[in-house]
Order: sequence, then C-alpha cells, then structure tokens
Amino acid sequence: MNDIRRRTKAAAQPDGTSPWSARRRQPRDHEVKREAVIRAAARAFNERGYHHTSLDDIAADLGVTKPTVYYYVANKEQLLFECFLAGLKPIREAFREAERLAGTGRERLNAVIRGYAAAIASEYGWCMVRAHDQDLGPEMRRQINALKSEIDQGIRRLLRGGMDDGSIAPCDPKLAAFALAGALNWIAHWYRADQALSAHEIADAFVGFFEHGLQPRQRTAPGSRPARGT
Amino acid sequence: MNDIRRRTKAAAQPDGTSPWSARRRQPRDHEVKREAVIRAAARAFNERGYHHTSLDDIAADLGVTKPTVYYYVANKEQLLFECFLAGLKPIREAFREAERLAGTGRERLNAVIRGYAAAIASEYGWCMVRAHDQDLGPEMRRQINALKSEIDQGIRRLLRGGMDDGSIAPCDPKLAAFALAGALNWIAHWYRADQALSAHEIADAFVGFFEHGLQPRQRTAPGSRPARGT
Repeated sequence: MNDIRRRTKAAAQPDGTSPWSARRRQPRDHEVKREAVIRAAARAFNERGYHHTSLDDIAADLGVTKPTVYYYVANKEQLLFECFLAGLKPIREAFREAERLAGTGRERLNAVIRGYAAAIASEYGWCMVRAHDQDLGPEMRRQINALKSEIDQGIRRLLRGGMDDGSIAPCDPKLAAFALAGALNWIAHWYRADQALSAHEIADAFVGFFEHGLQPRQRTAPGSRPARGT
Repeated sequence: MNDIRRRTKAAAQPDGTSPWSARRRQPRDHEVKREAVIRAAARAFNERGYHHTSLDDIAADLGVTKPTVYYYVANKEQLLFECFLAGLKPIREAFREAERLAGTGRERLNAVIRGYAAAIASEYGWCMVRAHDQDLGPEMRRQINALKSEIDQGIRRLLRGGMDDGSIAPCDPKLAAFALAGALNWIAHWYRADQALSAHEIADAFVGFFEHGLQPRQRTAPGSRPARGT
C-alpha cells in the first residue's frame, strides 16, 4: 500500500506515512494528527537529541508548517511529556493485564516485564528514559516522577506478591525493582543499533535472565556438577 | 580539618573544598586543579543538567573566573568527555584486577560488577550514562563509543569465560551483558535520591540478584545445599 513512501522522511505514522500527505487518504481526525506529531517528535528526539531538535525540524519531518504543530501541542517540552505518556500507556496496560492473571506473582511480574520491554523498544523508549531530567518544568517533572514512582511501586508490589506466594526468592524489593527497571530501560540505549532482535525476543531473554540469574542450575543429582563429566 | 567548609558551594574536591580556596593550603599542581574542574562539572551536570549548566556556573561553583576554567579545558563538551573518562577509570581498573584474579569466570565478573557499581554511584555516574548522546561532537562520540564497546566486550568475555569454566549458566552473552550494564548504569538515575545505601551495599545486592535471579532456590533438594543444617 505504501511501499514507496514507507522510507521517506515525512514519516510519523506506524506505517511510515504522514496523515497530512496529499498522496494519502484524507486525514481522519484531530487525535490521529496529534498522535502523528508526537510520534514524529519521538523519532526526531531519538535521532538528533532533544536539544538539537526544533519544532521546525518536526514540522519538516511531517511535511507541515510550524503553526500546524503548535495547533496540537503548546511547545517542545509538552512534546517530550506526551512522548513519555505515549510510551507509558502499554506499561500501565501490562500492569492491568497482570492483575487479571490467575498465576503466581512471578508470572504476573513476567507479564509486566514483557509489556515493559515492548514499550521501551518502541519509538517512545528513548523519550521515556530521558523524560525525567531538567528539560521539563517543575509541574511536568512532578507528574512524570509520580507516574514513574507508580511503576516502580507496581514492580515492588509484584515482587512482594511473588515472595508471599513462594514464586520469588526473598530479596530487597526496592533494589530488585531498580535492577529490573534499569536493565529494561537500558534497552532504549542499545535497541536501535540491533534491529536483528524483536522486542519479544529481548523480553524472553530478559525474563529468563531475571528468573534464573547467572548461576548454573543443578540439573543433576546432589553433589555432582551440572553437565560436567567428573 | 575542613568541617565548616565541607558544605560550601565552592566544592569540587572529594572532601568538599576548592583547591583555589584562599583558606586552604596552597594548590598543589595543575593536575589537581584540572581534576577539581572536572569534578565540579560532574556535580553541576548532575544537579542542573548538561544543557542548563554554563562554564560560568562551574567557575562560580569553584570560586574562580571563567578564563581559569578555560585554562584547563577547551569547552563544556570536553568537560563532559573528561567526566566520562574519570568515571571510566575505576571500571577499567576493575577489569584489570579481575584478570589477575585466580577464580572462576563468575568470580571475575562479580569483581567487575562491584567496580562498575562504585563508578556509577560516584559523582561521575550521571555523566557516564549521558556522555554518549548528541551533546558530543563526532570525534569525542567515536572515542566514547569505542570505550563503551570495550567495556561491553569485556563483560561478554567474562560471561563466556564463566560459561566455559562452568561457573555461569549458558546464556546469550550479548543480551546478558546488556541486562547487567543496564541495571548498573541505571544506578546513576536513582542513587542520589537514596543515600541510605552505600555503593558497596548496592553492589552486593546486585551481585546476588544477578547470580541467583528471582526464582526460589530448591532448599529441600535431595542431598541438601551446603551450609544448610538439614
């Protein structure tokens, strides 16, 4: 459908087209265009850095004028904030789904880890990892810190739940939550360079790593070394 | 010796004093002052963000003039680069020490994890985590990427060594290295808010977490575990 336009610069839809493109069907509504602006911002911030991206750049990427961008967002700071919220959505959804799961605490945690990995590997990942620092004014920073704290507390709660039901080994839930979130957040730093792996494959590997750690498992009878001949 | 001055703003030595302070003994040499400039920059970047810190701010923190700062570094970009190098030093040292260790691959890896955690929990941690992005020109970015890659490859090598000697369970060394580095790098994001823990305690908790993961250990397995009374 859009094989040719897929790789063009004016690309802020998941399929790589602009909702303003004359060659595309009529734009659907305000929300679609607003999302396109936010997605274009996320891509531009990823690529050039927040401080090296202007609203002019984002408008150019979308093939629109700067006043058009201003119609959807107040300023660049709000764009960073909206990118954070857009990335957060699937993580909050993963928490809600995990709560409905009839499994152990560890299974619920693993479901969240999968949703979290997918969110961070998305185009919003880099903004989510960045959108906590001094680029935001006090009110947006306060809101973002509150949302980040909600996620942190959610992970700790799942860890404690797993400890209570025996599916998770005793640990300090705060430090374990920081280690988990750190490993997951860091995906935003390396994922673009390594597109050979899908977010799903990364999530699988991470879930396995977090579950078992580095120590070899005792596959064999007591006293003997795993899979070693002597 | 400097109880009163310890908390002042003009503070860029590990003990909180400035080597330019008139009330302190004569400055020792060029290198000490240069390190003080770099340390002051690290603290300022941590506190205010790279883009919201000027060389004037750093000079003011040190109680010197901006030309004095320029005597030691060419510009703000070089300061970020130097902060990265300063933070990297103990990590490279940890690798060298690990290589001299007569233990298993896992023990060597744990030694590196401890050195890495200490470096990231230091005042240089935040700059190390930041100093890869679009704030640096191509040449410094190239150098930093090369140094980061060296660390990444070093972790993978230790992981492979541990798999070879049976001290580490089979895993994808690339993804495991990313998970480890991510958890460790993320310390720079939360450590300042939680000074109740020492870097050493964090390293201990992380080593335990990476070794064993979340899954409960089989305490009642036939033959029993060492150092358990039953």
